[in-house]
Amino acid sequence: MKALQYRTIGAAPEVVEVETPEPGPGQVRLKVTAAGVCHSDSFIMSLPEEQYIYGLPLTLGHEGAGVVDKLGDGVTGLEVGTSVAVYGPWGCGHCYACAQGHENYCERAGELGIAPPGLGAPGAMAEYMIVDDPRHLVPLGDLDPVQNVSLTDAGLTPYHAIKGSVAKLVPGSVAVVIGAGGLGHVGIQILRAISPATVVALDLSEHKLELATDVGAHHAFLSDESAVEKVRALTGGRGATAVFDFVGMQPTMDLGAKMVAVGGDQVMVGVGTGSLPVGFLDRPFESQVRAPYWGYRSELFEVLDLARTGAVHVETEVFSLDDAPKAYEKLHDGTLRGRAVIVP
Amino acid sequence: MKALQYRTIGAAPEVVEVETPEPGPGQVRLKVTAAGVCHSDSFIMSLPEEQYIYGLPLTLGHEGAGVVDKLGDGVTGLEVGTSVAVYGPWGCGHCYACAQGHENYCERAGELGIAPPGLGAPGAMAEYMIVDDPRHLVPLGDLDPVQNVSLTDAGLTPYHAIKGSVAKLVPGSVAVVIGAGGLGHVGIQILRAISPATVVALDLSEHKLELATDVGAHHAFLSDESAVEKVRALTGGRGATAVFDFVGMQPTMDLGAKMVAVGGDQVMVGVGTGSLPVGFLDRPFESQVRAPYWGYRSELFEVLDLARTGAVHVETEVFSLDDAPKAYEKLHDGTLRGRAVIVP
Amino acid sequence: MKALQYRTIGAAPEVVEVETPEPGPGQVRLKVTAAGVCHSDSFIMSLPEEQYIYGLPLTLGHEGAGVVDKLGDGVTGLEVGTSVAVYGPWGCGHCYACAQGHENYCERAGELGIAPPGLGAPGAMAEYMIVDDPRHLVPLGDLDPVQNVSLTDAGLTPYHAIKGSVAKLVPGSVAVVIGAGGLGHVGIQILRAISPATVVALDLSEHKLELATDVGAHHAFLSDESAVEKVRALTGGRGATAVFDFVGMQPTMDLGAKMVAVGGDQVMVGVGTGSLPVGFLDRPFESQVRAPYWGYRSELFEVLDLARTGAVHVETEVFSLDDAPKAYEKLHDGTLRGRAVIVP
Amino acid sequence: MKALQYRTIGAAPEVVEVETPEPGPGQVRLKVTAAGVCHSDSFIMSLPEEQYIYGLPLTLGHEGAGVVDKLGDGVTGLEVGTSVAVYGPWGCGHCYACAQGHENYCERAGELGIAPPGLGAPGAMAEYMIVDDPRHLVPLGDLDPVQNVSLTDAGLTPYHAIKGSVAKLVPGSVAVVIGAGGLGHVGIQILRAISPATVVALDLSEHKLELATDVGAHHAFLSDESAVEKVRALTGGRGATAVFDFVGMQPTMDLGAKMVAVGGDQVMVGVGTGSLPVGFLDRPFESQVRAPYWGYRSELFEVLDLARTGAVHVETEVFSLDDAPKAYEKLHDGTLRGRAVIVP
Repeated sequence: MKALQYRTIGAAPEVVEVETPEPGPGQVRLKVTAAGVCHSDSFIMSLPEEQYIYGLPLTLGHEGAGVVDKLGDGVTGLEVGTSVAVYGPWGCGHCYACAQGHENYCERAGELGIAPPGLGAPGAMAEYMIVDDPRHLVPLGDLDPVQNVSLTDAGLTPYHAIKGSVAKLVPGSVAVVIGAGGLGHVGIQILRAISPATVVALDLSEHKLELATDVGAHHAFLSDESAVEKVRALTGGRGATAVFDFVGMQPTMDLGAKMVAVGGDQVMVGVGTGSLPVGFLDRPFESQVRAPYWGYRSELFEVLDLARTGAVHVETEVFSLDDAPKAYEKLHDGTLRGRAVIVP
Repeated sequence: MKALQYRTIGAAPEVVEVETPEPGPGQVRLKVTAAGVCHSDSFIMSLPEEQYIYGLPLTLGHEGAGVVDKLGDGVTGLEVGTSVAVYGPWGCGHCYACAQGHENYCERAGELGIAPPGLGAPGAMAEYMIVDDPRHLVPLGDLDPVQNVSLTDAGLTPYHAIKGSVAKLVPGSVAVVIGAGGLGHVGIQILRAISPATVVALDLSEHKLELATDVGAHHAFLSDESAVEKVRALTGGRGATAVFDFVGMQPTMDLGAKMVAVGGDQVMVGVGTGSLPVGFLDRPFESQVRAPYWGYRSELFEVLDLARTGAVHVETEVFSLDDAPKAYEKLHDGTLRGRAVIVP
Repeated sequence: MKALQYRTIGAAPEVVEVETPEPGPGQVRLKVTAAGVCHSDSFIMSLPEEQYIYGLPLTLGHEGAGVVDKLGDGVTGLEVGTSVAVYGPWGCGHCYACAQGHENYCERAGELGIAPPGLGAPGAMAEYMIVDDPRHLVPLGDLDPVQNVSLTDAGLTPYHAIKGSVAKLVPGSVAVVIGAGGLGHVGIQILRAISPATVVALDLSEHKLELATDVGAHHAFLSDESAVEKVRALTGGRGATAVFDFVGMQPTMDLGAKMVAVGGDQVMVGVGTGSLPVGFLDRPFESQVRAPYWGYRSELFEVLDLARTGAVHVETEVFSLDDAPKAYEKLHDGTLRGRAVIVP
Repeated sequence: MKALQYRTIGAAPEVVEVETPEPGPGQVRLKVTAAGVCHSDSFIMSLPEEQYIYGLPLTLGHEGAGVVDKLGDGVTGLEVGTSVAVYGPWGCGHCYACAQGHENYCERAGELGIAPPGLGAPGAMAEYMIVDDPRHLVPLGDLDPVQNVSLTDAGLTPYHAIKGSVAKLVPGSVAVVIGAGGLGHVGIQILRAISPATVVALDLSEHKLELATDVGAHHAFLSDESAVEKVRALTGGRGATAVFDFVGMQPTMDLGAKMVAVGGDQVMVGVGTGSLPVGFLDRPFESQVRAPYWGYRSELFEVLDLARTGAVHVETEVFSLDDAPKAYEKLHDGTLRGRAVIVP
C-alpha cells in the first residue's frame, strides 16, 4: 500500500510503497478514509536529530478516520464496514488515568513505549492503518469522514481546553480566543455551542478576524494592547472569565494576563513557550493558568455529537495521498485555506 | 397610593387606596415600574381560610421591578433613580444558606417570619413597594422592566432547575421540557442558551407546541405515551438526560419516568403533586428526582444577563393597575397570551 | 479444576470438577486467591426459573482476586505473577459510558450479552478464572487478597454511592447510614475517611450498632421514629445532608425521607423495593433521590487506596472452596461474622 | 475605650484611649472578646508612606470575635449577647460576587471605599468594634473565642485554598504543605479533616516539622531538593496532586513546580512574590497555578464547624490589650509559640 512517510531528518515527507499491515490479536485494521494535516507534524519534522524521538521511517497522520476493514483475534463488539474516527492519544488502558478515559494523561505510556499513531506508531496517511485496540475508535455514523477527521485533534483539543472552564462561563461572562486559526476557529464554535459566554476573538490578521466573526465570535479585535480596554469595557471592568490562548507565545501570554478576571482562567492551548509571573501579588486573585494536552476519550464522542448537530464545522482543503507533500508545503507557506485533509 | 390587594378569603383581589409606605433603616422604597402576574397568586387565593397563611390584606406581586425612590437610613452603595429588579425569595441574609445567596432555602425565614413580597410581605402590585434590604435588588440597566419583570420568577425558577443539571447536558444529550407554558417556554430558551442539548418539548396543546418550536425547541411532540419512543429514538435508546416537568402532576411524572436515561435527572418544577417509585429496581440506575424551588441570588444576575444578550424573551400582555383584576380573570380563563404584567 | 457452581434451579451450589479454562486472545487467566460471598448470589439462586437469567451451570463469585497466571494473545502491559483484584461490572469498553470507565452503566452490555463474572460469566469461586480484558484488573500490590477481595463490591458499591454526595458533605453536615451490615459498616468507614461529616448509623440490631461505633460512627441510634428527632437535634433542625439506605425497603425509605435536609440526598444502596412521594409538596425542597449500582473503574483504584492507608477494613470469615456451600448456609442463617471469603 | 492603633508611619502601634463607637443604622457593635495578631499587620506597618493606603490612625485587628453589644437601627434577627466571629473580607453585599458570599472578591469594594476591619476600617484590637452589617457575623455558640478567633483568617484562608482542590484529593493522592507555620499547621489539619489525601509537610525548621507531625501530617520532610524525590516515591512517580505553598517565595515556588503531578494544583497561599514558567512545554500537562485570597462567607461557617468537632485547633499565646505591642514584637522576633491573640 501507499504511505506518506517521514524518512530522513530534515527532508520532506515522501509517498512510498510499504507492506499492507495485518492486525494482531486485539487490534483493528482500518481502510483509511481521511487523515488530517497538523502543524505539529511540521513541528516534529523540524526537530534536529538529537531531539527527534518518533522513530524513522514514520508514517504520518495523528488525525485519522477509516472504515473497519479487518478484526484481529479476540476483537468483539465491532463490525467490519463501520465508519469510525480514531482517538489519537493512546494510553495503556489500564492505569488510573486510563480507567477514566484520560488516555492523554496515561501514567505508563512512556514506560511501555506507547505512542499515538503518526507520532511514533504508524499513522493515518496511508491506505490502511492499524489501531491497537477497538476502544480507540468512535463511530462516525453518517458524519462525513473528510469533513470531520480534523475534529479528532483540532476539535478535541479546544473542546477539552474549553470544557475545563465551562462551569465558569455563565451568562454575562466573556471568553477570549487568542488566535483564530485552525484550532481557534473551532474553539469559537465550541464556545458558542456549549456556553452562553460572549465570545471575543483576537488575531493579528484581518482575514482571520473575519473568519472568527463568520463562525460566530460576537466581537473580533486586533490582538494588541488596545484589546485589553475593549475586553474590560465589555465586562464593566471585570475582565475575561476565560482566555484561551491558541498561540501560547510570550506576547499572547502577556496580553491574556492583562485581561483575565478575578477567578478567571488563562488556558494555554497552543504549543508555544513563555513564562508568566504567578505570585500572589502579580495576578488577579485566584485566576488560574493551565496548559492542557489533547483530550479525553469521552470528549471525542461529544465533539462528534456537536458536529452532528451542525454546531461545529471545520474549513477543509482536500488532497490525495500522492499530493500530501504539497499539503505540507502549503501549510508551511501559510497558503492553506482552513485545515488540509488527505484522502487516500 | 393604589395597591392591588387580596382582602377577603375567596373574593377577587381589589384595587384599593393605601398609605404610601416609608422605608425604615436599611430598607429601600421603589417606585414600581412593573409587576408580574403568576399562577401561584391564583393558587394562594384559592386556599380555604384554614390553609391560607399569607395574612390579610395582602398586596399581591412577587415579581417586581422598580426605580429606586428613597433610601432608608444606613443604605449605601445604591443610587436613587436606579432601575432594578427584585429578588423575591427573601431570607434572613445571615444563615449558612443565605451566606451563599441561597435565600430561597433560608434556614430561618420561618422562625423569623420572613416572607417574599406578595406572598406575605406587601408586594409589587402597587405604586410603591418597600424592599427590606438592598441586597434583594439587581440592577436592570437598559433592560425594559415591563418585558423582563417576569424573569424574576418565570425566568429564575426554570433557570435554577436547569442549572442543577447543566453539567450533564453534554453534546449528544437530550433535554425534555414537559409543559410549554409560562415557565416552560422560558425553560426551552434557557436550555438552548446554556447547553448544547437537543431540546424536546412535550405538551397537550398544539398551540403550545408551536410556541415551543418558535422559541427554539428542536422537537415538539404530543405529550402522550408515543413520546417515550420518540425520545428514545432520538438518543439511540438511551433516553433523556434530563426531564424538566413544568406540570408536575401524576401523568407527567409517570411519563417522565419512562423516558429518563441511566444517570439522568427528573426535575419537578411545576407545583403539582404525585408520587414515583424510586427504589433500586424501579428506575434507570442512578437516575435522580428532585423538586427545586425558585432560585439563588446570583442566578437572577445570570438570567438578566441572558435577557441582555437576547437569548431569553418572555411573551407579555400588559395591564394597568386598575385593570389588574382582569389580568387574574384572564389567567383563570386561560385566555392570556404569555405572561401578564401590571404597569402601575 | 474445582469450581463452585449453581447447577439446578432451587438447589444449593455444589463444588464440581471442571476443565481449567484457557485465555483467548486479549484475555487473562487468574489463579484465584480469594472470592467474596455476597447476598446477591443468594438472591439470584432464590429466583424461580422464569426469572433466572444467568445461565446454568453458573460458576459463582462476582468478587474476585487472583494472581495473573497466563496471558492471552495480544495482551501487553501486564506481567504474569502480578496480584490483582477484578473489577466486576464488565461493560463493552467502547461506548460513551465505558469511555469514562463507567462500565457499570455500559450502554451495550445487554445487547452484546456481556455479564459480570459470577453473574453470567464464570466467576471467581474456582481455582482459575478468565478475565475478559486486562482493563478489568487493578493491581493489589501488597494488599492481602483475602482481607480485601470484598472491597470489589462491598467496598466499591458504598464508595460510589457516597462519592456522588461527597461534595455536599461539608463540615457541619450529618450523613446517616441506615443498615450497619456488610456494606453499611464499610460505608461508615468510607464516610469517615473521605468527608468531615458527622456520621450517624441506624440499625435494628444492638450488635450492629456496636459494630457501627467500633468502625467509626459518631452516633448509633435504633432505627425507628425516634431517630428522626435525634438526627434533627444534631443539626439544629436542618436534617441529614445525605441518607445512605443500605436496606432500601419501604420502612427505611420512609424513615430516610423524614430526616433528609433541604437540598439533601437520599441514596438507595440496598437492593430493596419501595416507593416514595417525590412531588414538589412532598419533600424538603431540592432533596434528591437516587439508586446507584456498583461503581466506576477508577473508583476501585480509590477504594483499594483507602484500604492501603488502613482507612477501610472489612470483617471477614474465611472458607475453603470445599466449604463454600457452608458459607452460603451461614449467610442464609445470618450467623456469618462480617463477610465470607472463599480461598481456593 | 482602649484601642491599639497604628498612628505614625514606621512607629510601633500604641494603646490609646478613643471614643467608644456607636452603631449606625444597619450596624452592630461588638464587645470584643478576642483579636488575632497576623503577619499581614506587620507587613502593612512596614510599608513606606507612599505605599501605605490604610489610613491613620488605624485600629488594628482583622481577626475578631465578640459579643453582640448594641444593634443599630433596623437590625433584626440577631440578639444582644450572642457570641460571634467576624467575617473579615467585607464587600458591598450587592454585586454578583457578593451575591454568592464571595465578598473577598467583591467587584465594588475599591470603588465604594470598603475595607476590612483592621485593614482600613477600625479593627478588633479595641474594647468595642463596629461591624458594618450583621451578615458579617457568624455565631460561635459554645466555641471559645480566644481559642478560635484566629480561624477567621488563619483558618479561613487555608480552608478556602484547600477547598478549591479538594475534589482532586481522592484516596491515593498526596497533598504537600510547604511551610508548617501559622497558616500551614492549620492547613495540615484541614487537609486531614476534609480529604483522604496523604499529607506531606515541608519546612526548613526541625521544630515546625515536629509541629506538622503533631497536628497530623503523615510525612514531614526538610524543604529542599531531596523532597522532590521523596514525594515522587510516595506516589509511584506521579507527584503531588496539590501543593499548598504557605511561603510563596521563589524557592518554594520552584520546589513545588518540581513535584506537582499531571493535572495537579500549585496553590500560592503565602503573600510572597515570584514567577513561574507556565507554558505548554514547561509544566506537567494541565497542572494549574492559582493564588487565592482569604475565603467565602459560607466557608467561615464550615471552618468553625471543623473546630466544633475538634478537627482543627490553633496553637495560641494570649496577651492583654495593654501588652499587644509586645505581641507584635514577639511576632517580629519569631519567638511566638503559635498564633498571638489579644484579649481586651
